[in-house]
Amino acid sequence: MVKIAICAPGKPLKRARADAVLAHVAGREDIEVHFHEQCFAKEGHFAGPDEARLDALLECANDPAFDAVWFAMGGYGSNRIAAQAVAGMNEQARAKSYLGYSDCGFLLAALYKHGIGRVAHGPLAGDIRRDGGEVAIDRALGWLTGDDSGLEPHLDDRPAVAFNLTTLAMLLGTELAPDLSDHVVMVEEVAEYHYAIDRLFFHVTQHLRDIAGLRLGRITDVPENDRPFGKDEVQIAEEWCARSGIPYLGRADIAHDAANRIVPFGLEARRPRA
Amino acid sequence: MVKIAICAPGKPLKRARADAVLAHVAGREDIEVHFHEQCFAKEGHFAGPDEARLDALLECANDPAFDAVWFAMGGYGSNRIAAQAVAGMNEQARAKSYLGYSDCGFLLAALYKHGIGRVAHGPLAGDIRRDGGEVAIDRALGWLTGDDSGLEPHLDDRPAVAFNLTTLAMLLGTELAPDLSDHVVMVEEVAEYHYAIDRLFFHVTQHLRDIAGLRLGRITDVPENDRPFGKDEVQIAEEWCARSGIPYLGRADIAHDAANRIVPFGLEARRPRA
Repeated sequence: MVKIAICAPGKPLKRARADAVLAHVAGREDIEVHFHEQCFAKEGHFAGPDEARLDALLECANDPAFDAVWFAMGGYGSNRIAAQAVAGMNEQARAKSYLGYSDCGFLLAALYKHGIGRVAHGPLAGDIRRDGGEVAIDRALGWLTGDDSGLEPHLDDRPAVAFNLTTLAMLLGTELAPDLSDHVVMVEEVAEYHYAIDRLFFHVTQHLRDIAGLRLGRITDVPENDRPFGKDEVQIAEEWCARSGIPYLGRADIAHDAANRIVPFGLEARRPRA
Repeated sequence: MVKIAICAPGKPLKRARADAVLAHVAGREDIEVHFHEQCFAKEGHFAGPDEARLDALLECANDPAFDAVWFAMGGYGSNRIAAQAVAGMNEQARAKSYLGYSDCGFLLAALYKHGIGRVAHGPLAGDIRRDGGEVAIDRALGWLTGDDSGLEPHLDDRPAVAFNLTTLAMLLGTELAPDLSDHVVMVEEVAEYHYAIDRLFFHVTQHLRDIAGLRLGRITDVPENDRPFGKDEVQIAEEWCARSGIPYLGRADIAHDAANRIVPFGLEARRPRA
């Protein structure tokens, strides 16, 4: 029995989506899913004020009754509590798995930097809302219960990480950023113009000159600009990698979609739970 | 007679706007304005390919016939040529004034980092299109001809810089970033959600812990989100400054509008031309 606690470090989760996840897993005897009430809190942009989101995360992480912390939603806001969160985590927190993506990348980064738990980039509980969302949920629950079939297929013997491109750009150079030298770095993006993606690649490739290489996930829902950019996302990634001397390694099977595969951070998180 | 060369390191300028600037200055005997033909070039997102934009900038900067380089438009793209531009500049370029803002901040940063010329954040030639645009043009031409009445009114005896917030976030930690320790840093933004502004402030305040202080320009055209953020831009700036130990110094009279005042970079650029 793997006991999974769910909280929302950024935006709130709609209760109907939690209900859909609970209905989907009803009857499974290998897992138990607990949605922290904070998932449904609302204050301005966020699932409750910083203090409430921080407290809920620490309750989930520090409670010996749970084996894993699964993030409900991305949105924006996990950077506002990430430093305090890792500072407040106990030995129980260090033994857990953590799974999420998008804005939760700030937390994944901070956890990985501090060697806390098994950290992975993969589906959120709220992904139940997507077309094919139940497949994403099963992939996430699979990884949390020791099934590696949902892993990103290009993982090799080098440590890897994965991030939303904007999230990565905003965390580089901050107190949340882990040392990514010699890592394969995978990035994905949603709803950004090609010119903004070009600018983000300029920034991240300048910061990441000593990584093992970069893989490009899917870039989805690119808005139509008043004029075409003139290059697609592969050309953008290849060019900035070349300019910074970073090996461009090809595509990655990650994205803001239901097919989003799982990327454990580093090599440690790839080992099955004892 | 101050001779001013105009080029477009990012997006193209509409010819009607150049004509409007030329008509506005017709009859003035103290200045001569030259629009480089590259201002009107188009390739994808840009005012011509990187090579053409770089060549035009170097022609304007390195030509002893000109006293100043004035940027036509922002948009996006000056980061793609800034490093090569400063590397290709000669002694003539070092004696000139440079004026612009928005995406041109990448170039202003690189010029200032390398001690090239008198660099200032202020109106672009293309600002003629704005309501009150002629006032902005006169302010820019005033500064380029030795009139300091358009300077940002909060400048004190400390060195200052000014940037668009996104541009600053994207250049920090890159090869274009100057040392901003002990500087007053002014920022403005346009057309970004409050949550994105919060995220940008997280990033820049983490990078700029040793600055003298931060001033907040106008944050204009904030899109309406599906839910209110819960804080305004002053609260956002104050909070992140407090969290990073940066003195918040109040507002600055800079923005993506015709009232955008002039911020010379450092103390050197405040001295009138000999």
